[in-house]
Amino acid sequence: MNQVNETIYIPSGYSFSGVPCGLKQSAQSDLAVLVADQPCRTYGVFTQNLVRASSVDWNENRVGQGRALVINSGNANACTGKQGESDTETMARLVADQLDCELDDVFVMSTGIIGETLPMHKVEKGIRQAISVLNRGEIDVKCFAEAILTTDTFPKIVSKRFVCHDREYTVLGIAKGAGMIGPKMATMLGVLLTDFPLGSDPQHRFAFREVINRTFNCVSVDGHTSTSDQVLLFAPESLEPSRPESTSLFFEEMDGACESLAKMIPSDGEGAQHLITVEVRGLQAESELQAVARAIADSPLVKTAIFGTDPNWGRIVSAAGYSGIQFDPDESSLWLNGTLLFRHGTPVEFDARKVSQSLKDQFDAQIVMELGVDSGNLNSAKCWTSDLTYDYVRVNAEYHT
Amino acid sequence: MNQVNETIYIPSGYSFSGVPCGLKQSAQSDLAVLVADQPCRTYGVFTQNLVRASSVDWNENRVGQGRALVINSGNANACTGKQGESDTETMARLVADQLDCELDDVFVMSTGIIGETLPMHKVEKGIRQAISVLNRGEIDVKCFAEAILTTDTFPKIVSKRFVCHDREYTVLGIAKGAGMIGPKMATMLGVLLTDFPLGSDPQHRFAFREVINRTFNCVSVDGHTSTSDQVLLFAPESLEPSRPESTSLFFEEMDGACESLAKMIPSDGEGAQHLITVEVRGLQAESELQAVARAIADSPLVKTAIFGTDPNWGRIVSAAGYSGIQFDPDESSLWLNGTLLFRHGTPVEFDARKVSQSLKDQFDAQIVMELGVDSGNLNSAKCWTSDLTYDYVRVNAEYHT
Repeated sequence: MNQVNETIYIPSGYSFSGVPCGLKQSAQSDLAVLVADQPCRTYGVFTQNLVRASSVDWNENRVGQGRALVINSGNANACTGKQGESDTETMARLVADQLDCELDDVFVMSTGIIGETLPMHKVEKGIRQAISVLNRGEIDVKCFAEAILTTDTFPKIVSKRFVCHDREYTVLGIAKGAGMIGPKMATMLGVLLTDFPLGSDPQHRFAFREVINRTFNCVSVDGHTSTSDQVLLFAPESLEPSRPESTSLFFEEMDGACESLAKMIPSDGEGAQHLITVEVRGLQAESELQAVARAIADSPLVKTAIFGTDPNWGRIVSAAGYSGIQFDPDESSLWLNGTLLFRHGTPVEFDARKVSQSLKDQFDAQIVMELGVDSGNLNSAKCWTSDLTYDYVRVNAEYHT
Repeated sequence: MNQVNETIYIPSGYSFSGVPCGLKQSAQSDLAVLVADQPCRTYGVFTQNLVRASSVDWNENRVGQGRALVINSGNANACTGKQGESDTETMARLVADQLDCELDDVFVMSTGIIGETLPMHKVEKGIRQAISVLNRGEIDVKCFAEAILTTDTFPKIVSKRFVCHDREYTVLGIAKGAGMIGPKMATMLGVLLTDFPLGSDPQHRFAFREVINRTFNCVSVDGHTSTSDQVLLFAPESLEPSRPESTSLFFEEMDGACESLAKMIPSDGEGAQHLITVEVRGLQAESELQAVARAIADSPLVKTAIFGTDPNWGRIVSAAGYSGIQFDPDESSLWLNGTLLFRHGTPVEFDARKVSQSLKDQFDAQIVMELGVDSGNLNSAKCWTSDLTYDYVRVNAEYHT
């Protein structure tokens, strides 16, 4: 799933860097900076957790325009009281002073351990160094993407090129994931950059939120909504009014980029041996189908069965049953990796060894559940998650504060 | 936590047995029968899962009176369509024929793998044998309790003696647990027997349901509501009207028995190394405090931290934050095994090694969260769960259908 070897298209007008400043115990880089040449239009979605990192509050209060983003990993600066709020502001101020831009144009993200105050002397040194090496190349984007990781095993970068009115544009997305990835989130740390100019149409906010709901908000590793989840989009400001057909093309491209990026998160979920795609179809509303998909995706019994390559479909059907959504089990059917296991409420004879082998052979596991007799006109919702493995327990039990 | 060596008090008027009939691959017993000398008043609570075993429907339609209960383990007879319904009825009929009682007076429970039809020739042989060895001794109760287990490692029996109007009565509870133990359940398999006579007061049903809500409904192993959860209470019918002070004494005794029994379930949760008690206090309604307790208890990050004996309180506070219940994080405090870690929204310095050692030394882990500044008049709710260990993954990934 490591897609870093693919070509990375970089939208014009942005520079990047990532450096180590000693926040992580390893010598890995942990401070990332991104700067736009010009003030940008910005959009954001933020964690729905009541317990929020101070950087989430900082960004939510400033979204609309912006020029720079500083991210540290290794420390979430969450549950750190007044000191934490002041440290977030200091991070923004250090960047603003060096770039000579407005304080309110600098966004801050922090990810890592909760409840420890930031060692600001290290952060300050890191910010100075990161700003001194800002650059526009592929290697700089990779340095940026590396520096925001925590328990991730690979950097998460997706880029797409598209043409609109004979001009080529790019959308670039960078994210981190691995743990504390949960269902009620606004989303994980994610950054989206484009050189496609966006006008001031208030509809853009809804279009942006809709893309996030369909992509980042459909992944889960452990169902634990983080204190720090956020996604920011930077786009140049268009002075002309937006043309609806052009912007909808842009949001379509962004949707594709976000879906690829979102799927990388459970693919690299802590200890993941499988990326599980749960698709639920039925006549119910999409939000209801999503709730059923999520109940299946969050069940530890389903996740351990997939890890054990066991086509234990009873765990899947029973998870759907406690989702809180009404459906008729006697009209429902279930497929695992394309094999029908349960049809209209009754078990189907199938070759368990063959299905188990397909789970062994493939990283991708596909669960499809239909909550009604096929009418051809069913709605559908998808959710992506990782399996629950020995390594998930190891990563989270052996990690010590 | 194995309390089987304690004296078991047995209410008069019931006989028990448990035998092996070959439903489990091991030679362990898997068919249990319980018979009351006289028709009893019965009360029941049933799984809230939409996908229900046919035995749940059978029992819910017959609760009110009853004389006998047959339970098989190793096969849940769930998601088995019309064949499953017919097999449940056959089990009841075999018991009714041999006891010469009404078909509608026989309850049926099945627990084990979902989606396989019962091998009825084995079940029939087992029922005949179990009825032939019915008896009233402590050993017979233990045989019954053994025969209903699945991945449990010890039988779960609690008994209490109490005196009412100079007469001694007993309440005996037997349960099974281990896996597929979840938050929206009516509850797990549980049987409660008493020789305390209950009149026909419709309030008894509410009192019974309230006890179950406070006890069995507050445990969770994996958050996965089973298709087969149910608790039945058998009590002799009183011909006189109930005396409120006597019956409330009875329900108090039953509450104590149910709490002890309920806590045995996560104590013996699949792979459990700790019984985690989560207590949440605040001015909110008890149902809201329960929702916060459950969000903490169901977080895999909290459960792995306790397994790893790591006082990682940020995971606990952040789980409370995504529970959906409103509270002010800046007024909240948290204790782990009696040590204050987080006070009114700010980290407290504490000896992490000492708290970690207390988690190593004790099977019981105590999390207490207060959602507001202590006023002395806080409500409180408790939830019991197990930690998430390598053995949890092993039991559920290596198990093959």
